[in-house]
Amino acid sequence: MEIALMDNLWVIIGTFLVFLMLGGFILLEAGSTRMKNAGHIAGKTIFTAGIGSLVFWAIGWGFIYGEGNWFIGLSDFFYGEASFSGEGLAPAVDFMFQMMFALVALTVAFGGFAERAKLSSYVIFAVLFSAVIYPVVAHWIWGGGWLADHGKQDFAGSTVVHLTGAMAALAATLVLKPRMGKYNKDGSSNDLAGHNQVYTALGVLLLWVGWFGFNGASTFAVADGFFGFVILNTQVAAGAGAVAAMFVAWALTGKADVPTTLNGALAGLVAITAPAGFVEPWAAVIIGLIGGVIVVFSMKLFDKAKIDDPIFALSVHGTVGVWGTLANGLFAVPEFSSGIGWGLPGLFYGGGFTQLGVQIIGVVTSGLYAFVVSFIILKVMDKVMGGIRVSEEEEIVGLDLSEHGGYGYPENIPHPNDKKGA
Amino acid sequence: MEIALMDNLWVIIGTFLVFLMLGGFILLEAGSTRMKNAGHIAGKTIFTAGIGSLVFWAIGWGFIYGEGNWFIGLSDFFYGEASFSGEGLAPAVDFMFQMMFALVALTVAFGGFAERAKLSSYVIFAVLFSAVIYPVVAHWIWGGGWLADHGKQDFAGSTVVHLTGAMAALAATLVLKPRMGKYNKDGSSNDLAGHNQVYTALGVLLLWVGWFGFNGASTFAVADGFFGFVILNTQVAAGAGAVAAMFVAWALTGKADVPTTLNGALAGLVAITAPAGFVEPWAAVIIGLIGGVIVVFSMKLFDKAKIDDPIFALSVHGTVGVWGTLANGLFAVPEFSSGIGWGLPGLFYGGGFTQLGVQIIGVVTSGLYAFVVSFIILKVMDKVMGGIRVSEEEEIVGLDLSEHGGYGYPENIPHPNDKKGA
Amino acid sequence: MEIALMDNLWVIIGTFLVFLMLGGFILLEAGSTRMKNAGHIAGKTIFTAGIGSLVFWAIGWGFIYGEGNWFIGLSDFFYGEASFSGEGLAPAVDFMFQMMFALVALTVAFGGFAERAKLSSYVIFAVLFSAVIYPVVAHWIWGGGWLADHGKQDFAGSTVVHLTGAMAALAATLVLKPRMGKYNKDGSSNDLAGHNQVYTALGVLLLWVGWFGFNGASTFAVADGFFGFVILNTQVAAGAGAVAAMFVAWALTGKADVPTTLNGALAGLVAITAPAGFVEPWAAVIIGLIGGVIVVFSMKLFDKAKIDDPIFALSVHGTVGVWGTLANGLFAVPEFSSGIGWGLPGLFYGGGFTQLGVQIIGVVTSGLYAFVVSFIILKVMDKVMGGIRVSEEEEIVGLDLSEHGGYGYPENIPHPNDKKGA
Repeated sequence: MEIALMDNLWVIIGTFLVFLMLGGFILLEAGSTRMKNAGHIAGKTIFTAGIGSLVFWAIGWGFIYGEGNWFIGLSDFFYGEASFSGEGLAPAVDFMFQMMFALVALTVAFGGFAERAKLSSYVIFAVLFSAVIYPVVAHWIWGGGWLADHGKQDFAGSTVVHLTGAMAALAATLVLKPRMGKYNKDGSSNDLAGHNQVYTALGVLLLWVGWFGFNGASTFAVADGFFGFVILNTQVAAGAGAVAAMFVAWALTGKADVPTTLNGALAGLVAITAPAGFVEPWAAVIIGLIGGVIVVFSMKLFDKAKIDDPIFALSVHGTVGVWGTLANGLFAVPEFSSGIGWGLPGLFYGGGFTQLGVQIIGVVTSGLYAFVVSFIILKVMDKVMGGIRVSEEEEIVGLDLSEHGGYGYPENIPHPNDKKGA
Repeated sequence: MEIALMDNLWVIIGTFLVFLMLGGFILLEAGSTRMKNAGHIAGKTIFTAGIGSLVFWAIGWGFIYGEGNWFIGLSDFFYGEASFSGEGLAPAVDFMFQMMFALVALTVAFGGFAERAKLSSYVIFAVLFSAVIYPVVAHWIWGGGWLADHGKQDFAGSTVVHLTGAMAALAATLVLKPRMGKYNKDGSSNDLAGHNQVYTALGVLLLWVGWFGFNGASTFAVADGFFGFVILNTQVAAGAGAVAAMFVAWALTGKADVPTTLNGALAGLVAITAPAGFVEPWAAVIIGLIGGVIVVFSMKLFDKAKIDDPIFALSVHGTVGVWGTLANGLFAVPEFSSGIGWGLPGLFYGGGFTQLGVQIIGVVTSGLYAFVVSFIILKVMDKVMGGIRVSEEEEIVGLDLSEHGGYGYPENIPHPNDKKGA
Repeated sequence: MEIALMDNLWVIIGTFLVFLMLGGFILLEAGSTRMKNAGHIAGKTIFTAGIGSLVFWAIGWGFIYGEGNWFIGLSDFFYGEASFSGEGLAPAVDFMFQMMFALVALTVAFGGFAERAKLSSYVIFAVLFSAVIYPVVAHWIWGGGWLADHGKQDFAGSTVVHLTGAMAALAATLVLKPRMGKYNKDGSSNDLAGHNQVYTALGVLLLWVGWFGFNGASTFAVADGFFGFVILNTQVAAGAGAVAAMFVAWALTGKADVPTTLNGALAGLVAITAPAGFVEPWAAVIIGLIGGVIVVFSMKLFDKAKIDDPIFALSVHGTVGVWGTLANGLFAVPEFSSGIGWGLPGLFYGGGFTQLGVQIIGVVTSGLYAFVVSFIILKVMDKVMGGIRVSEEEEIVGLDLSEHGGYGYPENIPHPNDKKGA
């Protein structure tokens, strides 16, 4: 029973760390956007934590882990269980850890709404995403649904959390259209630079710390000290991502762009999320490094395609989330996988294309589900609500004033250029 | 012994988390006040951590937990014990966890001094509060004093920490009088808005994370995985508070005011502090939700009464602290209470008015003691020191310059309106 | 095995806390410098975490702990070990905890480069420091090298981490020369005040929390609950440092300077790092208090000597790091030292001058090695690279623009005075 208690202690520590990631997102998202929207974005994250927790408590857990079918769970709504047998995780500990992943996915999804969506439309979408989008994908892969039956691996949520959130963000981005002033008539784009890189850097650091819980506590057990290995992989992948992205930006533009460096660290973290428990450290370095390179070009491609992604959620959580899931199919080592009971060997270790194929199917179906359902919901809302985007005047003045009635920084004189809505 | 070691590990983790709350307070208090006082408020929190720790080490612990009488403990000053028997908590771990609560109470009390008290007056009050106000109430309820004898429940400090701190803040607010420019001659009030909502939101997030330790580690044990349940209650109450406050503000004013939303989350956390270990999750949702509603109206009432409360300490920690303590009398479940050895059933479970009555007596006597002693101390100081408030000129220029000799943001041009002292 | 698992859990918690210190450094360093360099300084810390992790993984660990000689380790490069025997620490956990110390030392070293070094020169130095400076000193004291053989005590890295980092910072400061506008022709100096004291204060709070892991987890074991005692010493020393520095500044200048108060807390933390596990709490209070006094005068002396130290790394980590190491020679208690297996009694307890002498030899040789090798490297780089400092124009405009191509705060109008490069 002592070890079971330690497992509980470990997973609740992981819960704290993942919740701390929301603090990282407050800073990352506020820092990556403009002053006139800063209060909105920061306050929205606290609201997200609130509404996401309530929906998860009421129905989210039940849809994911309840008794149900290949598609969805359908029991155990409104948590009411407090017993602990001394075996495995206490119900409340497991419940809390899972809740945190739902909150992170929702926070990622918000990225697509930044700087132009009505608060009311985000509120409604937040409820629906937490109720019928995230739980379905989570059920498929983690809750005993059809992808779990086919051996889909997702150590800590590359697909379930990051890809699902990013696909919802993509749908929002497409329905909302680019921010005012982002693209010029000649097709070129303007840099609507985020207002505070200290926030952004500290946000990345908090996310990095939180990721130790995100990946490390996904072992669910302390039994063989394996969590240390998962954390080591996480660390070197993040480091490789930051270094790679900085040097790529430096080589391409002559300047070691700070936001790109920061996104490189996040890319390393997202990339290693699926394979953290299945690969060797040298492979983690390569996976992070490639993640850091990919994210730079992905950001450029989305910008070229005029898909306006203020917080880079599509590239960081989407593109790199896909890379991480596939990388697991390439690099997973048989003995590590079997060591924790549910892995299949990667391509380089004789796993052949079967495992890689399962990973691809998982990514495609999960991503499609999240995107299509999000898109339909938002299109319907757009009709019913008379638009999910604020008016031009409101966008120019900023969401702090239009949606919340007061500036986030009431004593800072707005920058003159800001008046043009750009 | 393994389990005792795990208990120690759990409580020291709780210690870290509660200390992290001071980081939350730095941001919450600095963000809720004006730029010209930001360095003062932030630096003061580090001083608070310092002086509070030293006073607790020297005499605070002894007054709370020493051998003494119904009113106060009177032994075990100047910690000097390093042994650990393998049973229960190691002395130093217990000491550190208790110290953190004293620091939080003092930080709450500071709220009433914000933006107008001399640094010297806060320094003196901080010593006296840490020496003779907080320890006495803590002794009454947690240290074997007279309220403990009567079965007063305070799981993690709704009364001891939040109400005591808030009552000291109330005394300070009354003695100091409102800030310049807060109330107009016609009786209306101005919004001296805090200067940075990103700080405030991140502050709330850090406080929320810290509260997992505040409430969770107040189990003092890992033995039955019960801490997970306490944390689940904490989470849903905080979430319900944030959501409730946001919608109430939205309904009342047409705008989803950010500071109100954030105070709603804190209200949920304060409300669940007393009953976190005694109620079911559905009750935690209701307790948090009502906390989120109450805090909005309490803020309005204090403002109507011209009691100027810059950081909303009176409403968040005071009014809602009372609600949380009483809610425990309403919702406490017998088996949970007995499960951790010291509870009495709530009104809805057959506890009758006895338990509710004990809670009320505890709130009234503790609150009165903290208020009256604080008020007397501050009035005496006001006479002896030739005023505990800075001069009008100093208040206009800000405490950063007047008390510390330099601006907190030396490169930011002060907002023109700021010159008027408003 | 349960206890071994708990030890692993404890040390990995310590790892998280020490990594969180990098968040503290982001805020401390950005807050202590000017707006035009804020993005550079914040982003650089994330790059530091990245490059430092990769170098440590590749060769740092091997140079410290590999099989080698009295000077350096020479095996176990590129971590590849995942097994855990159930005895002691899992290899990956130990590896991660040690990695964090290397990152902190590098971050301290950066202090000397602030606001004037080319990014490229910092990048190259970061690699060399992580490869051949830090690991050598760490091998001498912690990895079985010659100072370890002579009984050098360094509980958690006063010498290995803080002094080594500070000596590299000193070398950088001397080679780079003072910032433009720092010293006047008449020999007087200007205060190039840091731009955000809220950042600085929160940074100190995060560092303080992180130090609980830095010192506490340096017990490497939970076995006797001793970590609580180490944390208690850490807390009261930090508190005493903050209080002492504030009152000294107040007495000297009539104003309770905020940055000085904050540096006092850090001084208390640095001072107690060596003796945290060897002294009684009353001694910890004295050690922290003297640290808080020393740091104020050290800052003044460096300024008098025209050694420009923007982030006060030389005083906080250098001067006070030496004090802490020597204080251990004065106050270490025999039974505590023997309790954890490797201590010698301090001067006051009959250890005589032998132990104090060993401490002095360790400080002098380690400090000299770090300084001399850093100085040579930087001088060679200065020749080869055509200068390691940015041009005057670049320094005036700030490193955000010159090195990274964009301001850290693109919407904040630079302060007029800032134009003069001061």
